[in-house]
Amino acid sequence: MTYGPAPLDALSALLGARCATGESVLDQHGRDEGYTSPARPEAVLFPESTAEVSEILRLCHAARCPVIPFGVGSSLEGHVVPAHGGVALDMMRMNKVLAVNDADLDAVAQPGVTRTELNARLRDTGLMFTVDPGADASLGGMAATRASGTNTVRYGTIRDNILALEVVLADGRVIRTGSRARKSATGYDLTRLMIGSEGTLGVITELTVKLWGIPEKISSAVCGFPTVEAAVDTVILAIQSGLPMARIELLDEVQMGGMNLYNPDMQLAEVPTLFLEFHGTEAGVAEQVESFREIAEEMGGSDFAWATKMEERNRLWKARHDAYYAGKALRPGAEGMVTDTCVPISALAEAIRRTKERIAASGLIAPLVGHVGDGNFHLLILVDPADPGDVERGKRLAGEVNEIALSLGGTVSGEHGVGTGKLRYLEAEHGAAYAVMAELKQALDPRGILNPGKLVTV
Amino acid sequence: MTYGPAPLDALSALLGARCATGESVLDQHGRDEGYTSPARPEAVLFPESTAEVSEILRLCHAARCPVIPFGVGSSLEGHVVPAHGGVALDMMRMNKVLAVNDADLDAVAQPGVTRTELNARLRDTGLMFTVDPGADASLGGMAATRASGTNTVRYGTIRDNILALEVVLADGRVIRTGSRARKSATGYDLTRLMIGSEGTLGVITELTVKLWGIPEKISSAVCGFPTVEAAVDTVILAIQSGLPMARIELLDEVQMGGMNLYNPDMQLAEVPTLFLEFHGTEAGVAEQVESFREIAEEMGGSDFAWATKMEERNRLWKARHDAYYAGKALRPGAEGMVTDTCVPISALAEAIRRTKERIAASGLIAPLVGHVGDGNFHLLILVDPADPGDVERGKRLAGEVNEIALSLGGTVSGEHGVGTGKLRYLEAEHGAAYAVMAELKQALDPRGILNPGKLVTV
Repeated sequence: MTYGPAPLDALSALLGARCATGESVLDQHGRDEGYTSPARPEAVLFPESTAEVSEILRLCHAARCPVIPFGVGSSLEGHVVPAHGGVALDMMRMNKVLAVNDADLDAVAQPGVTRTELNARLRDTGLMFTVDPGADASLGGMAATRASGTNTVRYGTIRDNILALEVVLADGRVIRTGSRARKSATGYDLTRLMIGSEGTLGVITELTVKLWGIPEKISSAVCGFPTVEAAVDTVILAIQSGLPMARIELLDEVQMGGMNLYNPDMQLAEVPTLFLEFHGTEAGVAEQVESFREIAEEMGGSDFAWATKMEERNRLWKARHDAYYAGKALRPGAEGMVTDTCVPISALAEAIRRTKERIAASGLIAPLVGHVGDGNFHLLILVDPADPGDVERGKRLAGEVNEIALSLGGTVSGEHGVGTGKLRYLEAEHGAAYAVMAELKQALDPRGILNPGKLVTV
Repeated sequence: MTYGPAPLDALSALLGARCATGESVLDQHGRDEGYTSPARPEAVLFPESTAEVSEILRLCHAARCPVIPFGVGSSLEGHVVPAHGGVALDMMRMNKVLAVNDADLDAVAQPGVTRTELNARLRDTGLMFTVDPGADASLGGMAATRASGTNTVRYGTIRDNILALEVVLADGRVIRTGSRARKSATGYDLTRLMIGSEGTLGVITELTVKLWGIPEKISSAVCGFPTVEAAVDTVILAIQSGLPMARIELLDEVQMGGMNLYNPDMQLAEVPTLFLEFHGTEAGVAEQVESFREIAEEMGGSDFAWATKMEERNRLWKARHDAYYAGKALRPGAEGMVTDTCVPISALAEAIRRTKERIAASGLIAPLVGHVGDGNFHLLILVDPADPGDVERGKRLAGEVNEIALSLGGTVSGEHGVGTGKLRYLEAEHGAAYAVMAELKQALDPRGILNPGKLVTV
């Protein structure tokens, strides 16, 4: 694919000062939070409407200029790095919640609305938007990377929580996919095709998302275990017994050490620990808690600490959401390489056992945090960026963890996506299907201008 | 698109007697259960392996011969009618359950396994496959048409219940989409692209489906209401209050009359009636039942009849699943035209009110049955096939019902699909996105041999 320069005159005429080329704004849009080398875009565009996005795409399509959609920049695999130049399309000024349909349990929002902004807007409705990655990501970014979070085990990933999209295609055409009806059997599932496409098939300009009733009763807890195996076996048994847990998260003893460093007022035992949450009616939650406690105690779990008041729960989950920063506290100055493998739940204990072996062999510090109810867990591999040997060891360890997941029938990314960081595994993971993805990319974006170099190679 | 004749010599050499051209087998594969004119295929092929399907596609691709996948033939929109000739690919000899992974709550099966066969195989595991259209459809057919059924409101459609597929593409390439991991953020969602594609993008040769634990306690009920509005308002309130009902189905007073004719030993009041089911723990179900009863009684619901024993429940749901035949009993000798609209739940009462007005204006008998928890309902419009005026009135009524759904932000098909019967509405429903579907079809099946004339027009 050969690309042309950005049509800056036309873009400036369209957007005025919202076509920005200042040094700092280019730098801000040349990297994400991952471990990918940054690269500057030629310009950063700040559209305020679908019509503007459409016109931008039309201009860039004609000029064969790459367009890289940008949300809050919290992706971890280099998704937003302009690998082939072009313009960054910062969607954060399209940040209106357009409708909250209480009666239908859905909301319509622009892509620059973040998950906490949407939930703030829902205050007083008794409803919630559930998908909660660690970062306060934008809805558009979450959809583009097929994000999930801590309560996916109960409420699903963003894939399951989007009813409809408005999307601008590579050539500027605007389409609407899906509808507010809860199901449909008419036509190809373009909504799901766009979700997880990482800006390579279209630019999302509007989302209709599912909302859920805030449960009558919520109870959270932490529970320590003698070994990671015991904690994982507890999770597996709880899932298999059909317990409808809202959250079940594992933090290993290394990560718990980081938590105590990062939150000095929250001293928890530095043992493998499950963070849990149960949603339901008063009686339903009591039943779930009792069933879970029986399973956990059988596996050696102890020191249950319960939080039912909202402030206590918020404190607990704030701590969990800060895990990335807490992990980093274990090696000040280090950079974190984050892995994101996901395996069938029956293979989870084996995946973690083999992973821990590889960590030990690497000599690195690598705390483990996992959405273990989904079979998904992360390592935060801490490396000194100034030490090439360290970086090399980190990359090798990440590679070994990915190979372990693939050998157990899993995936190299449960929720962070591909970007450029995981490109090299996609052929191994998808086999002949990977070529089909390239054929679809070719069909919808024949000039390859949409976020080139990510997810597919064409 | 121009098509060639079936490469019968090569197909016969490959399949022997499993390449059949007898009159009756051609007739059986020239129609479905819908109101579409039949057309014979040139031959019916009965592959027994993915390798055979791949070779068949390779041969037919070279010969530009249409291939129409065929399951049990229970589709309702002409999906399996060979509109442009070619061969029917009867998948029912690929009918093995390949694995039941209790620990992961999934199963791997070939496409010719039916839903009741899969559930029979699961007996003694404590697990169930939930998707239950009226017919005992094949898994492959259900996936191809994005089927759902009576418990979608709780467990989702087949879209939500498939983890992975094996698919043979138009040119014979075999791909695997997805994995047994519960989530992944790597690559385009080819699984969802194939689900609902009605055999136009590939032939499904293996499915990995989600299983669910059979709940500890199941309670079913029927409850009569003074008006359809009161029943619908009860459903809407129950959904909005977050009651996790497993099934909530509406049968109007006309349909209840048919039920009594068809099941003479099951005399129920001929009033708008909800068929309900609650799943959970003993205490959880008791809570749900109580909450529902409060809502229903406020709306004038009465005469609750509860069934907790398995035989009673089976009898109740057998009656519900027989609704199509029961409806037909209202006008012996009539043919049924089935509508399948789905709207946002807040628009359901209005959709049904307008629909009932149109039924009255048509002078036809058209019982109403609905998966109203999803906003989806069916009319069975009964027409005398020998009376052209009657047929014309039926088609007009069906068209009006579809227009009502579209005007309320809904879809012309909640679960039956497009086939040829709904083709004319897709442009109106999807707008510019419909052209994108054709572009995807063109990319994956450039010779247009896969079930041509259905879903997209290229």
